[in-house]
Amino acid sequence: MKKITYINNNYINHNKAVVSVEDRGLLFSDSIYELISVFNSKIIDLNLHLKRLFISLKKIKIKPNFSKKKIETILKKLIKYNSLKNGYIYIQVTRGTSERKHEFPSNYKPTLIVFTKNLNIDEKIYKKGVKVITLPDLRWLRRDIKSTSLLPNILAKQNAFEKGALEAWLIDDGYITEGSASNAWIIQNSNKIITHPVNNKILNGITRQILIKILKKNNFLVIEKPFNLIQAKNSKEAFLTSSTMSVVPIIKIDNFYISNGKPGETTKKIIKLYNYHINQEKIKKNLLNKELKIA
Amino acid sequence: MKKITYINNNYINHNKAVVSVEDRGLLFSDSIYELISVFNSKIIDLNLHLKRLFISLKKIKIKPNFSKKKIETILKKLIKYNSLKNGYIYIQVTRGTSERKHEFPSNYKPTLIVFTKNLNIDEKIYKKGVKVITLPDLRWLRRDIKSTSLLPNILAKQNAFEKGALEAWLIDDGYITEGSASNAWIIQNSNKIITHPVNNKILNGITRQILIKILKKNNFLVIEKPFNLIQAKNSKEAFLTSSTMSVVPIIKIDNFYISNGKPGETTKKIIKLYNYHINQEKIKKNLLNKELKIA
Repeated sequence: MKKITYINNNYINHNKAVVSVEDRGLLFSDSIYELISVFNSKIIDLNLHLKRLFISLKKIKIKPNFSKKKIETILKKLIKYNSLKNGYIYIQVTRGTSERKHEFPSNYKPTLIVFTKNLNIDEKIYKKGVKVITLPDLRWLRRDIKSTSLLPNILAKQNAFEKGALEAWLIDDGYITEGSASNAWIIQNSNKIITHPVNNKILNGITRQILIKILKKNNFLVIEKPFNLIQAKNSKEAFLTSSTMSVVPIIKIDNFYISNGKPGETTKKIIKLYNYHINQEKIKKNLLNKELKIA
Repeated sequence: MKKITYINNNYINHNKAVVSVEDRGLLFSDSIYELISVFNSKIIDLNLHLKRLFISLKKIKIKPNFSKKKIETILKKLIKYNSLKNGYIYIQVTRGTSERKHEFPSNYKPTLIVFTKNLNIDEKIYKKGVKVITLPDLRWLRRDIKSTSLLPNILAKQNAFEKGALEAWLIDDGYITEGSASNAWIIQNSNKIITHPVNNKILNGITRQILIKILKKNNFLVIEKPFNLIQAKNSKEAFLTSSTMSVVPIIKIDNFYISNGKPGETTKKIIKLYNYHINQEKIKKNLLNKELKIA
């Protein structure tokens, strides 16, 4: 089956989905993106992702020529066309194609790209836990913007990959900010959980946002403050979160074992709580679809 | 006349030169570039640009599947096809197209794009001088790599543009590093010239490299050390350098006039010296072409 991809009002064969060599996304990484998980053909936390997409556009001053509603329609069509069950939807918006010049073109039509991807995460990472390495955080200082200026991120991820780790935790001014493509968390005792606060130094992950709410509702003490490598190594447990991978236990930071090299009990509990949220999202979406059918 | 552009072994109509939506240049700004000036159909400082291109590739670990010689052939063909007299050649190399994943694909074929652009710089900027504004330097900490992770650069340039300035000088830790797309220089007295040293905080511009040699040969004292905003505002003269614009006098930094709001005498002398180099390059190239014809 050929995969269908959306680009600028066209649904076409993915292999034929292209942009000009003078698209500003390619020339300048003048573009932002979102990646939204799909489980059992249900879109997870759609509204939060769409909200952040429009915030990113505003932050880099791209005026969208589409609505949230329109994107939702595109996503639903692509899930149907591509029979997507488990995986994600990737959305990228660039400032469009125009003659290469640093300053914004006076007139532009944003490029809107949406494609889907099948993805089945290896269950092993949840059962056995994963290793992370630490690296200096070399990224720019507007990490709150979900832009495609991702060269530092992929270099860090590749470095981790070559060392047999799933992720690189990035250290800025002595503190761990986040991973190259995920948020970083430590558990200091069974009830006290620490993650970096929201500012220009990290991207406020959707899974991060949701998980904080879930944890607070379940009487965990969530402290949003920076933590350093020593605190991380002395933590009882540690984990990472991302939209595609949800909650992943960490059992090793650099060459230092965490929670005796096995996923900790609190992390396991958190995974259960988060999976419950995912299932609720699925149920909500099913109900919503039913309601829509009735209406 | 249709413009011809080179992409992956094809010379095609510029408007049809495209890359996949899964090109890593577009998804991750996993790519590097060079921009080489052309005056009177002669390529300026070609060897230095090609050298830097291959250094950039090495720094982000893209293995090229082409030689310097091949790129030189492409450039010469495009200048001919497009009858390019004054302007520049743009070269971009990405890690190619492959399924979206942060880590490098195990097998990849780099995407090589080369296009030309006509450009006639408004002589006014040399005669009247230009304004620059100052902004915090938010860029990543590997600015020595000429990558397309340029979102901070274009946002700074746009900010300058909106304030009627040609460029934004970026301030990192109290010191001016460089402009969003040019190197920054101040003249403290008729003989003493300061510019930021080469390290991970700036891109070592080709015009910068050449100009340092020219200045030293002409008995100027060139000091490569960071300077701050107070030093810049107290300087006798100031200028910027870039491959497309060569040497441009600065007459205003933020709202502070430099050298009484007129291009200074030393800057004028430096412009003459640099233009002499450009003309020498043209002569050298002509001789080389003649020699090639004879051989």
